Amino acid sequence: MQARPLVTLLTDFGTADGYVGELKGVLLSAAPGTDLVDVSHEVPPQDIESGRLALARYWRRYPEGTVHLVVVDPGVGTERAAVAVASADRFLVGPDNGVLSPALLVPSARTVRLTVPPGASPTFHGRDVFAPAAAALARGVALAELGPAHAHPVVRRTPEPERWADGTVAGEVVAVDRFGNAITNCMGLHGGTVEVAGTTVPIVRAYGDAPPGALVALTGSTGLLEIAQRDGSAARRLGLSRGSKVLVRR
Amino acid sequence: MQARPLVTLLTDFGTADGYVGELKGVLLSAAPGTDLVDVSHEVPPQDIESGRLALARYWRRYPEGTVHLVVVDPGVGTERAAVAVASADRFLVGPDNGVLSPALLVPSARTVRLTVPPGASPTFHGRDVFAPAAAALARGVALAELGPAHAHPVVRRTPEPERWADGTVAGEVVAVDRFGNAITNCMGLHGGTVEVAGTTVPIVRAYGDAPPGALVALTGSTGLLEIAQRDGSAARRLGLSRGSKVLVRR
Amino acid sequence: MQARPLVTLLTDFGTADGYVGELKGVLLSAAPGTDLVDVSHEVPPQDIESGRLALARYWRRYPEGTVHLVVVDPGVGTERAAVAVASADRFLVGPDNGVLSPALLVPSARTVRLTVPPGASPTFHGRDVFAPAAAALARGVALAELGPAHAHPVVRRTPEPERWADGTVAGEVVAVDRFGNAITNCMGLHGGTVEVAGTTVPIVRAYGDAPPGALVALTGSTGLLEIAQRDGSAARRLGLSRGSKVLVRR
Repeated sequence: MQARPLVTLLTDFGTADGYVGELKGVLLSAAPGTDLVDVSHEVPPQDIESGRLALARYWRRYPEGTVHLVVVDPGVGTERAAVAVASADRFLVGPDNGVLSPALLVPSARTVRLTVPPGASPTFHGRDVFAPAAAALARGVALAELGPAHAHPVVRRTPEPERWADGTVAGEVVAVDRFGNAITNCMGLHGGTVEVAGTTVPIVRAYGDAPPGALVALTGSTGLLEIAQRDGSAARRLGLSRGSKVLVRR
Repeated sequence: MQARPLVTLLTDFGTADGYVGELKGVLLSAAPGTDLVDVSHEVPPQDIESGRLALARYWRRYPEGTVHLVVVDPGVGTERAAVAVASADRFLVGPDNGVLSPALLVPSARTVRLTVPPGASPTFHGRDVFAPAAAALARGVALAELGPAHAHPVVRRTPEPERWADGTVAGEVVAVDRFGNAITNCMGLHGGTVEVAGTTVPIVRAYGDAPPGALVALTGSTGLLEIAQRDGSAARRLGLSRGSKVLVRR
Repeated sequence: MQARPLVTLLTDFGTADGYVGELKGVLLSAAPGTDLVDVSHEVPPQDIESGRLALARYWRRYPEGTVHLVVVDPGVGTERAAVAVASADRFLVGPDNGVLSPALLVPSARTVRLTVPPGASPTFHGRDVFAPAAAALARGVALAELGPAHAHPVVRRTPEPERWADGTVAGEVVAVDRFGNAITNCMGLHGGTVEVAGTTVPIVRAYGDAPPGALVALTGSTGLLEIAQRDGSAARRLGLSRGSKVLVRR
């Protein structure tokens, strides 16, 4: 069956206040017949880092031509730019604060600076700047028509772990998910152990390699090492949060 | 591309219990090929006022012909009427408890009373009364075919602020959003100050006019004055909630 | 209007981490032009029982041909099977841990065991096993092409209440919903009383039969008796949770 234009949405708005409702109405009025896909509206308020890590997971999983709208925007109403990006045959629209970094790191990515219309609310660019731009891209408008080239968009990167002379990798927790899995910045390995929060945890291949309730480390679905508890929350048990240190030993 | 019928959903059901899943199944069975748009299922339980304010934000943003299903219904199983409304070329379906007021305030709005079928669950009109009516409207059934005219639907209004002889506007907080912004019932103004919770806050045009962490008042995206903290939660910092008093001085 | 393939989603992922975003991207890439319907991503983490009860509510409400994707999967990466089911002209995809029981209890249900591709992440079968299978079914691939017949899928049942010689029905709370209604395993009746948490509550037909604030028991929307408080939370007031005992007397 013929696919329609796809626009995904990632925001920190929550849904109950009706802001997401407004934004979707603007999108569907400006680009009728578009398929909207909710990724999340539950990014912690103004948490650019969480938005960036979520986007990294999903943006390339969608068909070519998909428009990813990302509004985690603590700088709305300041001098931060509003941008649209073309990268790997997908489009992204959002604030220039690093949240779009996963797509900007592709060498061929192109970025334009969106014009803020005179009547735009200084508190809600999601509705008045980003949604109209996403709708235009969904309708097939070319990126270059949305604004002038934007030379140096803000790029954030996950911190690199240290590699010590004895082979130890010294990394940290970059995210804790809903299950209490603590995702680190260390590439997953099979074999060895992880020291975390004063405990030594074995690296296993799958949950099935450990008894129920056991703490393990294993390679997660993006290839990074995770600290997890089978049938429980490792983050709660070990008191882990973003920035907690880990030492990976072969 | 040809647009399909649009039905938006606003409820206080949460999603985990499967009630929303049932309601959507009824809609898609009765009106195949309809685009469902989730506005929110996270309205605080039985909080008509929150539902009303959310609906006010979004209902006119959608294309003509859109059907807005709104189920915040503490009176299910009592004598309150179930209604459908045609207003400004959109349709609304929900309980007659004031939650639909934003559309009812349009002078040309027409309201009909829905018939409750004999087998309808007395605890779930969302599934058995409202969803079938919304599906009928999505399929193009005329409003008048859904029931007899309903003469005096319940209308709720945001309280008006007082205007004092010295020019002071005495208003109140009507909602607090996920970011901790306290939205008042006072139309936004540029210049002047707001007294709130024992503090005097400057009225600015945009967040960029204040340093990070500062308390400000500014015109929000519906034109109402909001008390906000740049990069933080004004409601938490000042202890604001619905009904908190504000004095706006030029 | 011609309906497109329908895939519903029920998970315990939450949305903020981007896992649901990934899963939807895989679905829409493998089955372009599919309508995705979010049922919930807020099932309590790893709570198979909540997922099972939610699914029971909605799965037969959808049009024939609908694919229900259900991922509440504490056993990912263990020996539990991944399955697809055809039942009552709908399809279901998920782990073989009992969460699919409502569809498996239909006598004509057929189940196949999905093949786990060699590169699948051992922590995210939702993305790498279940979503591709759901997409295949949405595209019209026959169930039998997805894997070999799976003889004895795991079936969970709601516990049956006891029926005493004096006519009393001794049951229990099986779920508490967002409104604080405590849903029991006793079929609803009109007339009589319920003893629960040291209190005797009348069985009424509808909320309108009781004054605001009153505790009542009534037949809920699936036919089971619920303990509820008009305009309040019975579960909070009485301290009810899954497993709380109830005695129903005519």
